[in-house]
Amino acid sequence: MRLAVVGADGRMGRELLSAIGRIDGVELQGAIVKSDSPFIGKDAGLLIGQANLGVTITDDPLPVFAKVEGVLDFTSPVASVLYAGYAAQARIVHVIGTTGFSEDDEKKIKAAAAHATIVKSGNMSLGVNLLAGLVKRAAKALDMEDYDIEIAEMHHRKKVDAPSGTALLLGKAAAEARNQNLAEVSVRGRDGHTGERKTGTIGFSSLRGGTVVGDHSVIFAGDNERIVLSHLAQDRSIFADGAVKAALWAHKQKHGLYSMADVLGLND
Amino acid sequence: MRLAVVGADGRMGRELLSAIGRIDGVELQGAIVKSDSPFIGKDAGLLIGQANLGVTITDDPLPVFAKVEGVLDFTSPVASVLYAGYAAQARIVHVIGTTGFSEDDEKKIKAAAAHATIVKSGNMSLGVNLLAGLVKRAAKALDMEDYDIEIAEMHHRKKVDAPSGTALLLGKAAAEARNQNLAEVSVRGRDGHTGERKTGTIGFSSLRGGTVVGDHSVIFAGDNERIVLSHLAQDRSIFADGAVKAALWAHKQKHGLYSMADVLGLND
Amino acid sequence: MRLAVVGADGRMGRELLSAIGRIDGVELQGAIVKSDSPFIGKDAGLLIGQANLGVTITDDPLPVFAKVEGVLDFTSPVASVLYAGYAAQARIVHVIGTTGFSEDDEKKIKAAAAHATIVKSGNMSLGVNLLAGLVKRAAKALDMEDYDIEIAEMHHRKKVDAPSGTALLLGKAAAEARNQNLAEVSVRGRDGHTGERKTGTIGFSSLRGGTVVGDHSVIFAGDNERIVLSHLAQDRSIFADGAVKAALWAHKQKHGLYSMADVLGLND
Amino acid sequence: MRLAVVGADGRMGRELLSAIGRIDGVELQGAIVKSDSPFIGKDAGLLIGQANLGVTITDDPLPVFAKVEGVLDFTSPVASVLYAGYAAQARIVHVIGTTGFSEDDEKKIKAAAAHATIVKSGNMSLGVNLLAGLVKRAAKALDMEDYDIEIAEMHHRKKVDAPSGTALLLGKAAAEARNQNLAEVSVRGRDGHTGERKTGTIGFSSLRGGTVVGDHSVIFAGDNERIVLSHLAQDRSIFADGAVKAALWAHKQKHGLYSMADVLGLND
Repeated sequence: MRLAVVGADGRMGRELLSAIGRIDGVELQGAIVKSDSPFIGKDAGLLIGQANLGVTITDDPLPVFAKVEGVLDFTSPVASVLYAGYAAQARIVHVIGTTGFSEDDEKKIKAAAAHATIVKSGNMSLGVNLLAGLVKRAAKALDMEDYDIEIAEMHHRKKVDAPSGTALLLGKAAAEARNQNLAEVSVRGRDGHTGERKTGTIGFSSLRGGTVVGDHSVIFAGDNERIVLSHLAQDRSIFADGAVKAALWAHKQKHGLYSMADVLGLND
Repeated sequence: MRLAVVGADGRMGRELLSAIGRIDGVELQGAIVKSDSPFIGKDAGLLIGQANLGVTITDDPLPVFAKVEGVLDFTSPVASVLYAGYAAQARIVHVIGTTGFSEDDEKKIKAAAAHATIVKSGNMSLGVNLLAGLVKRAAKALDMEDYDIEIAEMHHRKKVDAPSGTALLLGKAAAEARNQNLAEVSVRGRDGHTGERKTGTIGFSSLRGGTVVGDHSVIFAGDNERIVLSHLAQDRSIFADGAVKAALWAHKQKHGLYSMADVLGLND
Repeated sequence: MRLAVVGADGRMGRELLSAIGRIDGVELQGAIVKSDSPFIGKDAGLLIGQANLGVTITDDPLPVFAKVEGVLDFTSPVASVLYAGYAAQARIVHVIGTTGFSEDDEKKIKAAAAHATIVKSGNMSLGVNLLAGLVKRAAKALDMEDYDIEIAEMHHRKKVDAPSGTALLLGKAAAEARNQNLAEVSVRGRDGHTGERKTGTIGFSSLRGGTVVGDHSVIFAGDNERIVLSHLAQDRSIFADGAVKAALWAHKQKHGLYSMADVLGLND
Repeated sequence: MRLAVVGADGRMGRELLSAIGRIDGVELQGAIVKSDSPFIGKDAGLLIGQANLGVTITDDPLPVFAKVEGVLDFTSPVASVLYAGYAAQARIVHVIGTTGFSEDDEKKIKAAAAHATIVKSGNMSLGVNLLAGLVKRAAKALDMEDYDIEIAEMHHRKKVDAPSGTALLLGKAAAEARNQNLAEVSVRGRDGHTGERKTGTIGFSSLRGGTVVGDHSVIFAGDNERIVLSHLAQDRSIFADGAVKAALWAHKQKHGLYSMADVLGLND
């Protein structure tokens, strides 16, 4: 499968370039950057400390979209909406790991998916998406009156927001399974005289420190037992690997908007 | 629902008596012991440090089976097979938490289930059975070539065997989901020069110490990520509570042989 | 060693009565309650579901203090200050697990310790006090610039305050070892746009759910490694056991005010 | 401080080169390899995907030892004994992360330490060595009759031996603190009908899977409580970082043979 990476000179762009080199069945055919990038005209291998890959970095997306079968994209909402349009024109696969879309953006991406095969997720790791599916199942099976849900995450000291997007994704999975609106049942920043825990709430805790890539635990605490479902990320490469695998999966699907749960077969 | 406990003067028998007192919708109507028990003729309350429960401890099961709607049983294979026959005669519910049955025993229990509603499981905790279901799902979703499975458990210092029956139950769930025979892929007691880990194996580790009631973790370890699914038991009462809940569920079912996964709705 | 329990009809009072029965070398000689207790005049065994212990429950402390060698006390600041005075008059051991003392209370207890042997701690578990000592040592050995400290705790759903007193005790141990004032460096209730973690801060996270007795973890997170020091409590009995062991230790010491760290030999 | 790396083209050698580039106060002045290395004559930057470092890779150690102040060494017992001799001649620092020395090797290294400042440890991570110190302290404070010790570790699927050297190092720390001989009290590969746990034993469990760099936990399990002391390694770079820090520390010490516990000030 012929792939291109947009935002190729960013941190995740480079991870995507490496992942394409690592995984069988895909081949790098394009590396797109913004027009102010110092890398334009150079070989993409330079971005990942490798010998020539035979792909010249460019700021002109259209010729690239015309020749590849899929595009990997962890950029910004504005850029991703634009690229979704190009992917629709080219009738190709578009894997979107970008986050922070407005409702209007979401609509445009949905529209593009009439002619493109789009996989979009706030977390491209296979493991996290599987975890979200397991959390849903557990939240459905366990009575809300009996089992309290707490979500704890730890990330590196440079992370500027809390809770993590992935913690919220897991909380949403749990809330939906219990027919709740996450915003209404979230308890964040528990501190001081809190009173007893309210039945049906979902608590969030955010730890920060060191260089932790991202650990998440969803705890179902009942009378005298706990079920704990966790994901531990060792390296950011898992997100890039997941994107490549999503592209390979999407290559065999009809046009439409898919999630990583579809890729994993968790929605069957 | 009118319930009786067999083996009422044993450790789990007493837990079952307490659970019946704790849970709504059930009522103790019988407490059966072996004929050499010093408790025959006394009130069942004595076994759990409570005031009179109005139930006299007896070694004669038949009159008890005739008047109750369900029997809770954590005794021995020989006794449980016998009780399953009585339950079939009485057309009532029989919840079996006993372990160690021979194949022949299993057949007899299956036969009894033509006329009784039997729930049988090696671990009556709702949490552990849910965990087994989640493990199955994860083992199906994750490629055996990419994700190694390890099962670790910790129990109190008095436990005499390893791995725990529950660890094996979880291992079986994982193996079946990957179309494997657990016996062929188990790695137990890893020690010394082991060589590299073989793809597709399932490793078991057993820790022993203190008064730990029972912690189990199933680890799916892939490239740069781990998914960890755990159950932590704080108190043996969860097994008794699970048995009572299974009885309440079975009370509404047709005759047949069920597992805790059925009770939890995990086989749907 | 002849012991009495004050507040004998409370939750921790009953745990203390049980612990005295469980541990060698101590004997119950007194059970003191408030004057409105319905248990006055009855046998102390009644409070823990046991046969007669030969100790009559009383609301008159002085005759009891006169005949015992030690008093175990998880009551209230007002009561504990009073009992410390009685212990001083009687020249006996006074183990205080009560929390929430004012500075003035602390002074009175210190004064009483001129004539009594007092052990006082916010957490009587040997394990937690050992952990606090280990946290101090680790905090001293690890450079504040390089290792971020996070303290996470989980307690049952009925706990009304956060963080737990024990989490604060651990935080204080860490802060003191780094010559910090805990109040100035604490980060509690991290939520929303927090910015990057500030060097030298100590983060607290409080999880609530189920019937968890009390789990505490102190995490030192550096570049590419974490050291995690944890204490897991399975049962409240450990606090009562710790109090009895403190009494036995104190029996051999000179008058004075001691902590559980002294009992454990962690201040040597 | 001017440093050289021996075995510079190996996996740990490359980590050491990177660590020197990352840490302030040290400068790479030599990169030594075996005489059959294809990298002889090239710039050391090549080994870590960097631009020219101005250091030519060589198989001739003596001129390098003559001009540097310290040598970092994760090679083989034979080579390390030889290099210790060179370090003694040059009166410089020698940091040895090599493992598997015979008793005779150990004697030779001790002899070399009369004229060199040698830091030698089976695990160069600051965190693991701190953990060993904490384990010692805990094992001393907790009565062997009351607290069972279990050591669990997890490593990647390619590790060929079990338990890990670090698990054994931690076990040795615990055993020594309790005046035990580790070999006599180790329980490895617990499986089948084991009988009850024997008081005073130390259990080892080894998990293998994925790409886990190395997690170690030492569990002290008593009645109703556990103390768990853990180290989680995210990246092999911590071992190289520890070696560089050991060199900086050793630069200010007298000749002699030191351990990482000395570097951390844990033997005071």
